[in-house]
Amino acid sequence: MAKNRFPVWRLIQSELEAEIRSGLIGPGDQLPSENELAERFGVNRHTVRTALANLAMLGLVRARRGRGVFVEDRPPEYRITRDSKWSEIERQMNTGPSGQLLGSSERLATSAIAGLLAVPVATPIVMVETLRGASPSLLIYSYHVFERDRFVGIDAAVSRTGSFTDALAEFGVEAFFRASTWIDCRMPRPREAEALSIPLDAPVLVMMYVDSDTAGRPLLYGNAVIPSGSLVVRIDTL
Amino acid sequence: MAKNRFPVWRLIQSELEAEIRSGLIGPGDQLPSENELAERFGVNRHTVRTALANLAMLGLVRARRGRGVFVEDRPPEYRITRDSKWSEIERQMNTGPSGQLLGSSERLATSAIAGLLAVPVATPIVMVETLRGASPSLLIYSYHVFERDRFVGIDAAVSRTGSFTDALAEFGVEAFFRASTWIDCRMPRPREAEALSIPLDAPVLVMMYVDSDTAGRPLLYGNAVIPSGSLVVRIDTL
Repeated sequence: MAKNRFPVWRLIQSELEAEIRSGLIGPGDQLPSENELAERFGVNRHTVRTALANLAMLGLVRARRGRGVFVEDRPPEYRITRDSKWSEIERQMNTGPSGQLLGSSERLATSAIAGLLAVPVATPIVMVETLRGASPSLLIYSYHVFERDRFVGIDAAVSRTGSFTDALAEFGVEAFFRASTWIDCRMPRPREAEALSIPLDAPVLVMMYVDSDTAGRPLLYGNAVIPSGSLVVRIDTL
Repeated sequence: MAKNRFPVWRLIQSELEAEIRSGLIGPGDQLPSENELAERFGVNRHTVRTALANLAMLGLVRARRGRGVFVEDRPPEYRITRDSKWSEIERQMNTGPSGQLLGSSERLATSAIAGLLAVPVATPIVMVETLRGASPSLLIYSYHVFERDRFVGIDAAVSRTGSFTDALAEFGVEAFFRASTWIDCRMPRPREAEALSIPLDAPVLVMMYVDSDTAGRPLLYGNAVIPSGSLVVRIDTL
């Protein structure tokens, strides 16, 4: 169904992108020349050039005048541990709290949300939407869900402090830990694409997680929507 | 650039898909009626119906005759631990080894691959491509990279046994463990889309990993290409 909707340069882009992202063509390596790629894929140089321009726009390659096209460094890693926090990433990147409140809304917990927050089904919850940016090349759209009556005014605290860690501290939460993380991918919602400055046909990585307090009681259910290629999630198990 | 290429039903699909995947509309919940959705998004019922049909095709919702449209159960979880193995998933799903050899090729290790396999740069490596299916709704396209001279004939062993665990045993590897995992997402390569029976505009989750032997020496670098929505990766840290 979709095949013939796809321009040839996009197919070439997806081939090269897969090799670059897997490390089969490594950071610093030079790509084959436009002529070589045109021959390999059986297309003309113009088509190859369009694919390369798109890879450059994604930050995967960079043309060096008169020398060719080279693979850029891989995106930063986000390590999942019990101490995973966005504020840690911001600290590593030498930026302060960068959370910008986009809005908040109330609803009732579905059975899925109730299970994650360990509250009864239909408990009132508040969902806080933020845009966070540790750097211009790393923007993240987030949804954070809290039990409403336990954290009245959490949205205002996030708006004031730019940080969930700081906002939670105002409610007496001194420390919290990552309990579980789920990772999925999908296409962006229109408002996510707009806030993240990505096209509607660029996929996003979605990291869903539950953070708990020192007693192991769930505090929040978060969803981080991350443009594909701007961050790689890493888990060490040995 | 992309916005006006996108039909309205796809935007509605992405809105509902985001809510379903995050659990904000939970498994078993009924979606609002076609009329309510048409009003909410300011479109006609035909557009809503196209979006719902696509969500059904993705396995996210199911229409029950005369009763409405309901959210399906979430996809199976793949837990990342030091014992993570595809053969474990197959065992959980009561299927045997399902690996089907698609091909193998040789190349030289880039610095990225060399670092992952702990071999010198430009060491000959062999890349084995397989298609694995624990169930009809869970197909995975995989690339496994090995040091060629250490595992001569690994491709034939995989072809014979349908399993990397069994193939490695033929080389004296009694046990192995997941050392590190990286998770990314991208659009599929044409041959991946074809083998996985997904459209070229459906994103894939890519799980990259290094498995090591009992002495901690890397054995293989794997890439699993998983259609979006057929599996959710899970990490427990508390």
